[in-house]
Amino acid sequence: MEIIGEKINGTRAEVAAAIETRDTAFIRGLARGQVEAGATSIDVNAGTSRGRTHEPEDLAWLVQTVQEAVEVPLCLDSPNPDALRAALSLTRTTPLINSISGEGQRLEGILPLVAEHGAPVIALAADDSGISKEADVRVEVVTRVLQATRAAGVADSRVYVDPLVMPLAGFAESGAVTLETMRRVRAAFPEVKLAVGLSNLSFALPARSLINRVFLTLALATGLDAALVDPQDPDLMQELVAAELVLGRDRFCRRYTVAYREGRYGFPSRVESAARRRPISPSDRD
Amino acid sequence: MEIIGEKINGTRAEVAAAIETRDTAFIRGLARGQVEAGATSIDVNAGTSRGRTHEPEDLAWLVQTVQEAVEVPLCLDSPNPDALRAALSLTRTTPLINSISGEGQRLEGILPLVAEHGAPVIALAADDSGISKEADVRVEVVTRVLQATRAAGVADSRVYVDPLVMPLAGFAESGAVTLETMRRVRAAFPEVKLAVGLSNLSFALPARSLINRVFLTLALATGLDAALVDPQDPDLMQELVAAELVLGRDRFCRRYTVAYREGRYGFPSRVESAARRRPISPSDRD
Repeated sequence: MEIIGEKINGTRAEVAAAIETRDTAFIRGLARGQVEAGATSIDVNAGTSRGRTHEPEDLAWLVQTVQEAVEVPLCLDSPNPDALRAALSLTRTTPLINSISGEGQRLEGILPLVAEHGAPVIALAADDSGISKEADVRVEVVTRVLQATRAAGVADSRVYVDPLVMPLAGFAESGAVTLETMRRVRAAFPEVKLAVGLSNLSFALPARSLINRVFLTLALATGLDAALVDPQDPDLMQELVAAELVLGRDRFCRRYTVAYREGRYGFPSRVESAARRRPISPSDRD
Repeated sequence: MEIIGEKINGTRAEVAAAIETRDTAFIRGLARGQVEAGATSIDVNAGTSRGRTHEPEDLAWLVQTVQEAVEVPLCLDSPNPDALRAALSLTRTTPLINSISGEGQRLEGILPLVAEHGAPVIALAADDSGISKEADVRVEVVTRVLQATRAAGVADSRVYVDPLVMPLAGFAESGAVTLETMRRVRAAFPEVKLAVGLSNLSFALPARSLINRVFLTLALATGLDAALVDPQDPDLMQELVAAELVLGRDRFCRRYTVAYREGRYGFPSRVESAARRRPISPSDRD
């Protein structure tokens, strides 16, 4: 599965501050940390804390800064066509565009960029009336978005449908409706990919990482191709590796056993564990 | 979901020793600990470490000892009709019988007891040729077992089909085949319940509890009604509560939030956490 690292997001206070002060070391650290933890691409979101007019230059700076640190593709996260255009002129490899939706203005502004750059794109199952509580309605929205992407010459296989999650705390069927939306989209549009962001689901509930990772396991079984997550959450990454194992997607259990042995994907490092068990020598006390 | 506590099993060395020495305190402790952790019934398996002829009296002793400690129903775990008969004469409430299968001798020996006592029963998807690697074959075995239970007057709703798990370490598609067997059994026999034991799945792999709980989440989404597990595994119980939440089976998120607040189902106790944070008072030092 594709793991899109979510941490470089200007709506987080410390990232907004790093953008404001052009703190390249901080941003590069976030990029490297996520890739080392298993991210296969890095989301970059400049936010709008400096006002919408600054977003193009801020996103361009993020793209350059992240590309200096890591090799993986980027996921350009903005509803602003100007910001996306500025970023697209700088990316080394074709990025994933995050995102279009059924919202008229967003579709009109961003879809031409997607078509022009031959980029894959995330399509949210929401429109100008927001996110529906009904799987049926979300599938209708997705169907309309796919009519637009096809008309623009974008193949279904380049579209990552995000069925969207609402907070369980306000809508206890939220997880079930999202999974049902995934099943229906997959059945109706077999070439389309499925992607999901997790942060809303567990909003206002305790032990959020637990809820997020259990949802991810269930989404994986329902055909999820990509997730926007914190790859530095060790419990989440362990659960993902185990879920691929249990679902029969890990030949000879190789990925799981190697990840465990090498302390990757959230498994505790054997080297660190051994070091912790080592008795304190006189020189350590100096 | 029904949680069958698996710990009182005579194939475990310490349980075998407790049976041998008639250590009632040890057995009662295992029963109470599991019920306090969330078990809705308790499996009792006397094992055969003292030889098959002792099993009826050993299982009868276990039944009496557990019933003195807890109120929940029992799950009588034996392939030996004599042991089951001895135990059935002592149970206060109708127990679950664990188990029949497509093995001719086992079916002939145990099915009459199931019918006579009106008991629910676990039916394993295996026969005299063992466990198949093919979901199709397991469903055929289940179909034959259900022909026998129906002929004996046992309603499908009293049968818990266990699709069985083989170790992933030797058969990497094991989890996928078990889940597929569950889907097909559920589709073909809608009244039948689904149960599963977990211990084999993760055999010979590291971080076994992780694999077990991820499988349980996937099985729950596939219609699992009961699981034979260690209810004192906090990560497993937390995952189960979260999975029911994410699947939309927890109205107003009430079970999850109450479990968290009260430190139940594997969530750390708030009282203990608060006590740990409490500064040491002079009287504590005495």
